[in-house]
Amino acid sequence: MGTQVEIICVGNELLIGKTLNTNAHWLAKRITSLGLSVRRITVVGDDVNEIASATREALERKPRFIITTGGLGPTFDDKTLEGIAKALNRNLELNDKALQMVKEKYEAYAKAGRLDSAELTPHRIKMAKLPKGADPLPNPVGTAPGVRLSIEGTDIIALPGVPAEMEAIFEESIAALLKKEAGDSMFFEASVYAENIMESTLAPLIDLTMHDNPYVYIKSHPKGEEKKPYIEIHFSTTAKDSKIAKDRLGKAIIQLSELIKEKGGKVKTFKAP
Amino acid sequence: MGTQVEIICVGNELLIGKTLNTNAHWLAKRITSLGLSVRRITVVGDDVNEIASATREALERKPRFIITTGGLGPTFDDKTLEGIAKALNRNLELNDKALQMVKEKYEAYAKAGRLDSAELTPHRIKMAKLPKGADPLPNPVGTAPGVRLSIEGTDIIALPGVPAEMEAIFEESIAALLKKEAGDSMFFEASVYAENIMESTLAPLIDLTMHDNPYVYIKSHPKGEEKKPYIEIHFSTTAKDSKIAKDRLGKAIIQLSELIKEKGGKVKTFKAP
Repeated sequence: MGTQVEIICVGNELLIGKTLNTNAHWLAKRITSLGLSVRRITVVGDDVNEIASATREALERKPRFIITTGGLGPTFDDKTLEGIAKALNRNLELNDKALQMVKEKYEAYAKAGRLDSAELTPHRIKMAKLPKGADPLPNPVGTAPGVRLSIEGTDIIALPGVPAEMEAIFEESIAALLKKEAGDSMFFEASVYAENIMESTLAPLIDLTMHDNPYVYIKSHPKGEEKKPYIEIHFSTTAKDSKIAKDRLGKAIIQLSELIKEKGGKVKTFKAP
Repeated sequence: MGTQVEIICVGNELLIGKTLNTNAHWLAKRITSLGLSVRRITVVGDDVNEIASATREALERKPRFIITTGGLGPTFDDKTLEGIAKALNRNLELNDKALQMVKEKYEAYAKAGRLDSAELTPHRIKMAKLPKGADPLPNPVGTAPGVRLSIEGTDIIALPGVPAEMEAIFEESIAALLKKEAGDSMFFEASVYAENIMESTLAPLIDLTMHDNPYVYIKSHPKGEEKKPYIEIHFSTTAKDSKIAKDRLGKAIIQLSELIKEKGGKVKTFKAP
């Protein structure tokens, strides 16, 4: 399974269907490309108890990392750190390094004329109150620092919900850490597109190809319109060496393509326009 | 909190970041618009144990509905019904009504020339094996029936992962059922867009407005580019009457807009282009 990661996304906007969860998609893709394995994604609302229980449940599954998004800002409903603190039975306390980060941001904004006053109001100080034992991660784009906290073999990493801030902190402070834990295993994937065959006819051909290619995972995704359906067939493998990976995927693609043609199907390397 | 719903999405493609989870977004929006409340969204891979544990954990929270998407098709990795059966300690068994639905679909496909043979192969029969006690839901678009199963006050509803099939079964067999359970409460929302104010300055104004408008939930969403930031402010309320809801939202919007202007901010009703 590789090094495991869980993602917890916090925000009522995700539960009411106002916002499409592009953060989970971005993180899942990026974490997979670094060679780690996302085991579960959980979405909860802006509620301390829900955040705490999702965090506790994830910790029980002992992933190497739990990455949260959302709920780090200055408003009353930014409750992620309170939820994590509750899950760990720790208090929130003012973190000097985090306060310095927040202070410098507002001073810079005031200097740039974007702000009347750089005063550290209670809502601004809130962003520097971290669970005891946590460290802040610099936010190169916005004001709320990210947060990192290690507990019994799991690193909890809290990132903001604004995509540009989430991505910037991930790339600056998290990507290298994850890559190191992944070791040298990498994820490889390729797709082909089949027409003129139904998924239920394809299914036993996939079984046979996977049996003969035990390191390759094959999944079919029916696509297209009802009148002109096609099936994307996605091949993936994890390997330490790109030549080995490409050989494996190539062998499986050739075998399955032959089997599909025998059943009267067509296989394309690129998606039909 | 209203009538609670949990969503469980099944599919490795979601965990590797290959596919954006538009199904969860569509369901969350639709369920909210029907007057129910989505409490949690969980995404797991094509793994019987993961599906079973996510189902068991959701059942423990006693939502009125658990809606799953994905994993109902004919391939080896379509494991949702096996996972649900495992969570409930029930067996999968061939369901006559479901088998009839599957059979009619393949006969129609063969008649239309889309298929050599309507033979009920093991992979096709698989789609008619439901957890004991479950009922199939007709799939007007594809072959795999949806599934409904009631257990101790919770209805588990399993829908396919192909969006067009998921949406069609939801509209045909589920929407009216959910609406009935929601009673006459409805969800109302509106947004305004603030410029020239930072979120940390806005935060205490939101606190005050929510204090004075206890039935309105207000959430700020920083948007735009760093050079030209704006904040979407989202107002929502649940009510039985659209006039009451609109009055509530209008009153809160007016109060908060005045407070923002006092701080030198601008408020627009429509998003800046």
